[in-house]
Amino acid sequence: MAIQQPTLLLDKNKCLANIQRMCAKARKHQLELRPHFKTHQSLEIGRWFKAEGIDKITVSSVSMAQYFADEWNDITIAFPVNILEINKINTLAERITVNLLVESEESISFLSQNLKYPVNIFIKIDVGAHRTGVHPENDTLISKIISIIEASSKLNFMGFLAHAGQTYQCRSREAIKAVHYNSLQIMTKLKSRYQNPQPHLIISLGDTPSCSVAEDFKGLDEMRPGNFVFYDLTQHRIGSSAIAQIALAMACPIVAIHKERCEIVVYGGAVHFSKDRLEGEPEGTIYGRVVEKAAGGWVDIIPGMYVKSLSQEHGIVVVPPDLIKQYRPGDYLLILPVHACLTVHAIKSYTTLEGNEISTL
Amino acid sequence: MAIQQPTLLLDKNKCLANIQRMCAKARKHQLELRPHFKTHQSLEIGRWFKAEGIDKITVSSVSMAQYFADEWNDITIAFPVNILEINKINTLAERITVNLLVESEESISFLSQNLKYPVNIFIKIDVGAHRTGVHPENDTLISKIISIIEASSKLNFMGFLAHAGQTYQCRSREAIKAVHYNSLQIMTKLKSRYQNPQPHLIISLGDTPSCSVAEDFKGLDEMRPGNFVFYDLTQHRIGSSAIAQIALAMACPIVAIHKERCEIVVYGGAVHFSKDRLEGEPEGTIYGRVVEKAAGGWVDIIPGMYVKSLSQEHGIVVVPPDLIKQYRPGDYLLILPVHACLTVHAIKSYTTLEGNEISTL
Repeated sequence: MAIQQPTLLLDKNKCLANIQRMCAKARKHQLELRPHFKTHQSLEIGRWFKAEGIDKITVSSVSMAQYFADEWNDITIAFPVNILEINKINTLAERITVNLLVESEESISFLSQNLKYPVNIFIKIDVGAHRTGVHPENDTLISKIISIIEASSKLNFMGFLAHAGQTYQCRSREAIKAVHYNSLQIMTKLKSRYQNPQPHLIISLGDTPSCSVAEDFKGLDEMRPGNFVFYDLTQHRIGSSAIAQIALAMACPIVAIHKERCEIVVYGGAVHFSKDRLEGEPEGTIYGRVVEKAAGGWVDIIPGMYVKSLSQEHGIVVVPPDLIKQYRPGDYLLILPVHACLTVHAIKSYTTLEGNEISTL
Repeated sequence: MAIQQPTLLLDKNKCLANIQRMCAKARKHQLELRPHFKTHQSLEIGRWFKAEGIDKITVSSVSMAQYFADEWNDITIAFPVNILEINKINTLAERITVNLLVESEESISFLSQNLKYPVNIFIKIDVGAHRTGVHPENDTLISKIISIIEASSKLNFMGFLAHAGQTYQCRSREAIKAVHYNSLQIMTKLKSRYQNPQPHLIISLGDTPSCSVAEDFKGLDEMRPGNFVFYDLTQHRIGSSAIAQIALAMACPIVAIHKERCEIVVYGGAVHFSKDRLEGEPEGTIYGRVVEKAAGGWVDIIPGMYVKSLSQEHGIVVVPPDLIKQYRPGDYLLILPVHACLTVHAIKSYTTLEGNEISTL
């Protein structure tokens, strides 16, 4: 492959295996898998999910829903509804089934008064991440929101949805499971509390660490992981995936070599990787790790070789002293990203190992 | 202005004042101002510099040079030359004057053998940032590079160029000046050492903190600041600018309010701001600060109101307890970015306070 500038390489086989593994897990536990497409943001990669029987998806913005509505007709926008986008929401709801997240009386009242077409509503529940959502014991607010939904011909109550984002603080499979079972308990309790007047309500959970690691989903109806399609160094660190499952690597041209301090400067910076980082690694804070090239892709991480800092276009790579002599300006390195979602969003296209270009939103 | 989604607002008057101030400073010190356009990445904003008499610019990638070559015919690509882009460099060098940065024998030899059109070469010098560049006392390498340049009909030696990136660690005007004077001394020493065989060589320095704060540029020929066109919270923290000079603010819709923990959730996350951060602020690590709206723009920072975390689309804003009650979902906040360059790159368009759209690369 002729690399000229930072190029996001996609190992399609690893990606397909990740998709198939999660689909199999959902089938085994009789869960609806509604994958989060904010990670790959690509119609073409979406079709790989369709081939596995997936017909409902999750996105993180109205713009992303507009893009995917060309090929998908049941989309959850997993973000507290932004009522300033009501016109776009109406246009979308005319075309496809739209599921929105609500967590306040103001937002649901606004929707009941301004929607032109029916939408489904999930009440977002805070299961401990404390980013968004209604406290699971705030029955007053939950009942109030449901009553406004019930009173509107445009609103249909779907159930409760949560994202246990606190799994991203975990550093072991056991810790992930503990967070997941706690979330599951909160959600199943809510389900039984509201199931009587609302027999069709469902509960939906969705972070990649829980969905990758947990084996108990009793009572859950839907899972919405996203990052698992590629995984990344963060997921590996949390304990969600093996390095061998990571399906993306950035090819970065070497532009300078500083043997005296064992550093390589690559063309590949914050505008390519984003500036997400992993703190507390054995080497300190890192922004990526270098993998060894192999016929048809890459194999394992090269020990001691990592991205120590990023500026707008530069990446500084620390290289073990015994390896530094083998590199030249004009070579390129393959670097696993810390955060796949943000890296994809920054680059906006993939090159498969076979050399095919795949576009995104 | 009808805000629907995260929108990067540009106060054109502040921006023009920033441009005029730096142009006046360059004239006063008889310096060539070759502004770095990686910050704004916009042909239209480039024209505001043209109106002030600027005719030479700096960019950070070959792609950016291709974009600006439509309107500028003397461009420095201030990044160690990426020899894998030789074809694009040749196409560019056929059209306009291109100035490249070199710091190794391998790269300059490659250029001498593969260039089809003449280009100018700066030797990149490391004045203490230790990111890229030749050590200023490495006469062997400097002389070797110059000899390869001299032997080639396609290469023209321009002089020495440095970026004192260590000013970004400064936290006072005095500290910035100390770094700048040290860099200036290193560069003027190099100039006198090589001026004899190379009477036309110039020396070029260029970080925004030094160019904003320093008042001694004796011996310097060219300055290349970029960020000053907008400034941002990082520059303010370093001591390069006042809050009132910051020309960009992101308008972010409010999507959820958590009164019990005095937090607002806005639509505005890592994909809008980038994930650059300011550590060690009185509140800890922050990702932005909220300013008060005013007729025709914004006024000062609201004390105690800042972005405490960003995920892909979410920003979590801490709000003083006495203010939390005045906000509703459907309002929007104005947030000053931590790093203007990365925020512009993420959003890729501006809306002026008069409501005009300005596009970028």
